[in-house]
Amino acid sequence: MILTVTLNAALDITHHLDRLRPRGGNRVRTVTERAGGKGVNVARVLHTLGHPTVVTGLAGGLTGRAIRADLAAAGLADRMLTIAGESRRTVAAVEESVGDTTILLEPGPVVGAEEWAWFIDHLDTLLPDAEAVVLSGSLPRGVPDDAYAHLLRLAHARGVPAVLDADGAALRTALPARPALVKPNADELAAATGLTDPEAAARALHAAGAGAVVASLGADGLIAVTAQGGWQARPPERLAGNPTGAGDAAVAALTLGLVTGEPWPDRLAEAVALSAAAVAAPLAGDFDRAVHQAVRSRVAVRPFATEELKPCP
Amino acid sequence: MILTVTLNAALDITHHLDRLRPRGGNRVRTVTERAGGKGVNVARVLHTLGHPTVVTGLAGGLTGRAIRADLAAAGLADRMLTIAGESRRTVAAVEESVGDTTILLEPGPVVGAEEWAWFIDHLDTLLPDAEAVVLSGSLPRGVPDDAYAHLLRLAHARGVPAVLDADGAALRTALPARPALVKPNADELAAATGLTDPEAAARALHAAGAGAVVASLGADGLIAVTAQGGWQARPPERLAGNPTGAGDAAVAALTLGLVTGEPWPDRLAEAVALSAAAVAAPLAGDFDRAVHQAVRSRVAVRPFATEELKPCP
Repeated sequence: MILTVTLNAALDITHHLDRLRPRGGNRVRTVTERAGGKGVNVARVLHTLGHPTVVTGLAGGLTGRAIRADLAAAGLADRMLTIAGESRRTVAAVEESVGDTTILLEPGPVVGAEEWAWFIDHLDTLLPDAEAVVLSGSLPRGVPDDAYAHLLRLAHARGVPAVLDADGAALRTALPARPALVKPNADELAAATGLTDPEAAARALHAAGAGAVVASLGADGLIAVTAQGGWQARPPERLAGNPTGAGDAAVAALTLGLVTGEPWPDRLAEAVALSAAAVAAPLAGDFDRAVHQAVRSRVAVRPFATEELKPCP
Repeated sequence: MILTVTLNAALDITHHLDRLRPRGGNRVRTVTERAGGKGVNVARVLHTLGHPTVVTGLAGGLTGRAIRADLAAAGLADRMLTIAGESRRTVAAVEESVGDTTILLEPGPVVGAEEWAWFIDHLDTLLPDAEAVVLSGSLPRGVPDDAYAHLLRLAHARGVPAVLDADGAALRTALPARPALVKPNADELAAATGLTDPEAAARALHAAGAGAVVASLGADGLIAVTAQGGWQARPPERLAGNPTGAGDAAVAALTLGLVTGEPWPDRLAEAVALSAAAVAAPLAGDFDRAVHQAVRSRVAVRPFATEELKPCP
């Protein structure tokens, strides 16, 4: 199975309304809610693809219970650790007349030092059954900045390849612990390296310890810098829709590729197709099967023109 | 004790942030949440004033549990009936740099016919201990438009005076069931009667069956049309703050007046002072004791110039 870790799991609440009046009262027409957080979204995609998946992370309070009730409803294996704090909500107000969305992101709980220590032990009991582990998303307050470095070392000790989707200090401090793959987006890539050229920035993260760097560049697709070479993978056309969850769909595809050992061009084509299919679906963690099939064979994957890759020492 | 009924109880979530970017992502700095709905706010004010109070109504799902946990934390006696549906949330995004608030109001649960029948029986078991009953706020879906008329007849049969704070069809259909007092605001008064003059509109509601009509007119204070006469009560000055909950504070004062039998001018002065004190407090259901004391002795209460009131036949 593939284990996904969501340390700051969320209850994603979507408010559908015709039009939002900022600084006024707004009657919501319909409400949907589901468990969220990047790791949960990755698990949903893997589960839909038929791959055995286990969800872990931290969840607490009545919001944590709502998150776990939804994981059960989705058929996802739940090995979340219960914490004392109240899990965060995200509230997305979707204006159906114009297609725009206003999002409110709660900060989430403060995790106690003892809870964090328990989680490390808990993860260590789950790793022996994992083919790969995915570490995704922001760190809740109270968890140290080098949390992902710690979890990566744990995965290394168990021989489990690890995929990291994080940014800022959580990403930078994790690179020396040598994740098998990191997947920043364009903004995260620039912020982590101070470089504006995505290829140069991806090479810098690779040199800093990431086994492979796959950066998602929105409508431009993906670029990959790996020990086996560098590629760019582009979707055949720009798709309209909801970009939230597109990166998580790419992580799901790349993690499957890591497990199956497919050639990189195939992994990247699959990641671009699943991302496009996620953009076509209204909720993060879902994807449109027809779009997935239609795009899959039409992704253009090309090696970088200049091949001067240095494998990670 | 005074019994307050909140058929569409809410979990009021407040998101504090510096500034809201509509159609963008917004990180919330701090989150507060508490049980809400007009009847709950009325009960909070009565409880703070030291008057025994019982909260009833309908609550369900994990949101219902959060509502009830907060009632317990506030020390409010909770006799809510549990329903299958999920109670509603309200989300208020408060921009601290500018003082503006954007509110999202969920529609709330759909109540089953059987659940509504259970609630009628449940209320009937609570009424014998009540000095007065307060019926406040919107009706959830599934509850008939004439719900308040039904509950008013139940209160009459038990000899319990009833205060109604509702609007639209819920108010109109309730008047023939002769509530002891109704408290519309200016908009609700105009909508219920089609009359733009508040005094004429209040007289029309009185003639239609309300024992007394006290209309809240914002900074202009209150007007009252009763079988004992008509009055206008004005605050000494305009207060800045949060008007949500000001009407509920007025209802709390007016219900206490109904129970104690104080003269109307005293009831109205108290209602204006408590409303002003509620405006000065940041959360609905709270009031500022210093403002309450400071305003109380300075409310100007004057009888209407032309006294041509007809008691309700």
